[in-house]
Amino acid sequence: MNTLPHEHLANLTGERLAAQIRFLLEIDKLKLVLRQSLLVDGTRRENSAEHSWHLAVMASILQEHSVFSNSDMPRVLTMALAHDLIEIHAGDTFAYDERGYQSKTEREAEAADRLFSLLPVDQGTQWRALWDEFEAVQTPESRLANALDRLQPFLNNYITDGYTWAIYRVTRAQVEKRMALVRDVVPPLWPLVTYCIEDAVEKGQLLP
Amino acid sequence: MNTLPHEHLANLTGERLAAQIRFLLEIDKLKLVLRQSLLVDGTRRENSAEHSWHLAVMASILQEHSVFSNSDMPRVLTMALAHDLIEIHAGDTFAYDERGYQSKTEREAEAADRLFSLLPVDQGTQWRALWDEFEAVQTPESRLANALDRLQPFLNNYITDGYTWAIYRVTRAQVEKRMALVRDVVPPLWPLVTYCIEDAVEKGQLLP
Repeated sequence: MNTLPHEHLANLTGERLAAQIRFLLEIDKLKLVLRQSLLVDGTRRENSAEHSWHLAVMASILQEHSVFSNSDMPRVLTMALAHDLIEIHAGDTFAYDERGYQSKTEREAEAADRLFSLLPVDQGTQWRALWDEFEAVQTPESRLANALDRLQPFLNNYITDGYTWAIYRVTRAQVEKRMALVRDVVPPLWPLVTYCIEDAVEKGQLLP
Repeated sequence: MNTLPHEHLANLTGERLAAQIRFLLEIDKLKLVLRQSLLVDGTRRENSAEHSWHLAVMASILQEHSVFSNSDMPRVLTMALAHDLIEIHAGDTFAYDERGYQSKTEREAEAADRLFSLLPVDQGTQWRALWDEFEAVQTPESRLANALDRLQPFLNNYITDGYTWAIYRVTRAQVEKRMALVRDVVPPLWPLVTYCIEDAVEKGQLLP
């Protein structure tokens, strides 16, 4: 492998740009973090980089249906691009994995410290703040991003016959609880979500 | 596979949202379009969805170094997310494949008609216009997006010992021609680009 040691990079481009290039090469690893959900065609598991792309496109296309339809779209998009980056160090924690969720906050905060500190301080602080905002699910922008972050694997899961629900013996109540944010933030999606849940329960893909 | 036929979807959500959901499920296929470049760790080829994510993050991080540093960032980001969507129907055309490039324009225009017409007319027109703008490489936003779209595989290729350059027997002159846009649009990257080219030629990874 050809390498680009930081010192050498910094001689070529200056410290600031060198730090940014190093960060951009490091985050290539997000393409190696596998999520639980399958692609729509069922051929393989999705990775967190392509999921982040899908989420950003979804946000752009569906924002108009949200109760936050005049939210700050550039912030929603950047949050979508950034929201899973910490998985490079912390791994993906499955939404219905209760044990994993107990250690999630701590693991992910450490991972965020580590990853965003690669960037120049001002930019690292800004990206870290975006990730914190996403995690807190309080602002309109983060509520919209989180709602669609739940919708995307929900739809992939439904289409692939409830693949991850079956593996983890997920119940209807668990899914309804997780999807309540979609109902609150993008109400026109709710009839679709309830239809998929009903149908999956009826077919035995979700526990009643 | 559970299905969501359009008529059924439209009954649940109305025609507009149904069309958008159908588009969002269709574009999952971009995750299956393989590019020539390897990931940074060399383990597999990159797909166009994860590449689009990487490009959008790059644009956000590196914009400050561009001669177009006050370009319309939301438009750059949406362009990055959208720029390869037509590959779902047209496939990826390798940058240095001269024969493929002869038919590229026609193939891709047809693919764009087909794909963006899935969306409601106003939104389809808007996304199609963004894609046309990217392809024309005239506006500041599209010049920035195109420059970074060339930088990302260039860096992956350099790190992976010039993997695709060797396969296609690419010459230094070809790479320099393609990367000239990076020099013009993000000049501080140029010393890095020339260093990688020199080094790759010296190691026999690029033809002189």
